[in-house]
Amino acid sequence: MVSISKRSTFQVGQELANEKTLTLSSTSNEGYLISLRPLVEPTESEKEFPFEWAFAGPPSSAKIEKKDELTDAIDFEFEYDTNVQLNAENTHRGVIKTVWKKWVSGLVEERGQVFPFGKDKEAVDFFELWQPLDATRSDFVMLDGNSENQETARSVVLSVDNAEFKGLVITVGRWTQGILFKKNEHTFNGLNILRALEQQDGTWKTLLQYGPDFGNFPQTFAAPVASSVDGGALKWKVVESNV
Amino acid sequence: MVSISKRSTFQVGQELANEKTLTLSSTSNEGYLISLRPLVEPTESEKEFPFEWAFAGPPSSAKIEKKDELTDAIDFEFEYDTNVQLNAENTHRGVIKTVWKKWVSGLVEERGQVFPFGKDKEAVDFFELWQPLDATRSDFVMLDGNSENQETARSVVLSVDNAEFKGLVITVGRWTQGILFKKNEHTFNGLNILRALEQQDGTWKTLLQYGPDFGNFPQTFAAPVASSVDGGALKWKVVESNV
Repeated sequence: MVSISKRSTFQVGQELANEKTLTLSSTSNEGYLISLRPLVEPTESEKEFPFEWAFAGPPSSAKIEKKDELTDAIDFEFEYDTNVQLNAENTHRGVIKTVWKKWVSGLVEERGQVFPFGKDKEAVDFFELWQPLDATRSDFVMLDGNSENQETARSVVLSVDNAEFKGLVITVGRWTQGILFKKNEHTFNGLNILRALEQQDGTWKTLLQYGPDFGNFPQTFAAPVASSVDGGALKWKVVESNV
Repeated sequence: MVSISKRSTFQVGQELANEKTLTLSSTSNEGYLISLRPLVEPTESEKEFPFEWAFAGPPSSAKIEKKDELTDAIDFEFEYDTNVQLNAENTHRGVIKTVWKKWVSGLVEERGQVFPFGKDKEAVDFFELWQPLDATRSDFVMLDGNSENQETARSVVLSVDNAEFKGLVITVGRWTQGILFKKNEHTFNGLNILRALEQQDGTWKTLLQYGPDFGNFPQTFAAPVASSVDGGALKWKVVESNV
C-alpha cells in the first residue's frame, strides 16, 4: 500500500506547536520512503536552502514493530539525510526511535526523541502530527472511507548510484518526490530536490525544484520494473513499479 | 466569505494532544456559526449523546478583534450550547476568550481558557488546531490557492424560534450543519443535530442524524432570503441566502 501524508504540526522540546513547512512524506508499496520539508516562507538566511530537512531511504531505513492495532514503533536510519550530507552541526546522527499512533479521527501522531548534541547528551522530545492523504488525487484530499484503494495505486521507485551521484525518486499515485546527492559535495550545491504532481490532464507540474543538478532528475516517473529512465546525464534504474 | 474547518487536534490542560471527534465548524457569509463535534468511537456511556459538544449562534456570538495580519482575538458567547441546554455540571458559562493565529502552512491555531468550575475558580487552557477546507467540495479537501472562491460559495442560514423550539441550520458550499433545541426539555431529548453533504449528483447525504425531533429539520437547504422552508411541523425562516 502506498501512503502520502501532510504534516499538520511539529512541536519540539518546550516550544509551542507550529508548522512552517509544507511537508509531505511518502512511502512506496515496498517501503521506500521520502520526506521533503520545504519552508513556506523562508527568511533571508534560509533562502539559500529553503528546507527544514529532507531525507529518504530504502525499506531498510525504517524498522517497523507493531505494538497494537493502532500503534507502531519505528526505528529510522536514513540513507539520504540532508543534515548528514551537509555535515550540519548540532543535528542528530544514527537511529531515531519513534512511536506512531493512529487516532480514531484518522490523523497519526508521531513521538520520538533526537540527540542533536550527541548520543550521550541531552535528548530533545518531538511531536509531529500527520494527515494521511489520498495519493490518487491531485488536491490535498484527506484519506477516508471514500478514497480510492491505496493498495492498487501507482507505486514507482527510481534510483541511481554511480561514482558521482546517488538518488531516489518515489512516485505514489499522482505525487512524485525525489532527492539527488552529489556524493562528494557536502554543501548546498550537493543537494537536489524534486516534487511534482500529475495534473488531471496527465501532465506533471513541478512543485519543488532545487539544486544545480536538478536537470539530472528524470522527467517521466512511470516505467516498467528493471528498465531504466534517462535523467539528464544519469540513467535511473526502475527498482519498483506498478504503473 | 464562508468557511468550514475540520479540527485536527484538541489539547486541554496538561493532557496530550488528541482528536476523538470529527469536528466541523462552519461560518456563513454574514457570520452565523455552528460547530458540531461528534465522537468517532463513543464509549457505551457516551452513546446516548455521542458528541463532545455542539454549539451555534448568530454573528453576535463572536466578537472579533483583528490583532495583526495573521491573528484575531475572538470572544465567543453562543446562543446555542448543548452544555447549557443540558444544564451540564462543570462546564463553562458565558464569554470564552480565544486567540486565533493563522500559520503560514494554512492551518489555524486557537488558544483560550475555559472556567468549567466557575469564573473565579481554576482556568483550564486549551489548544485546538483547525484545517480550513474548500466548502465547495464534497470531500475533505484542504483550502489552498487552487480552491474555488469562498466569497461566492453558497451561504444559506435558516432559523426557527417559536414557543417550543429554536434552531439554526447553516449551509456553506456543499455542507449543511444544524441544531434544534426543544426549549423546555433540558435532557438529551431536547437536542437535535444535523449534518448533511451535497453529493456530486446534487442529492444530499445525511452524515449526522440525532434527536427525537430530527424530523423537524428542513430537507432542502437552499431558498431565497425572507422566504420560508418547511421542516416537519416547523416553518424555518431564511435569514441569509446566496444560493
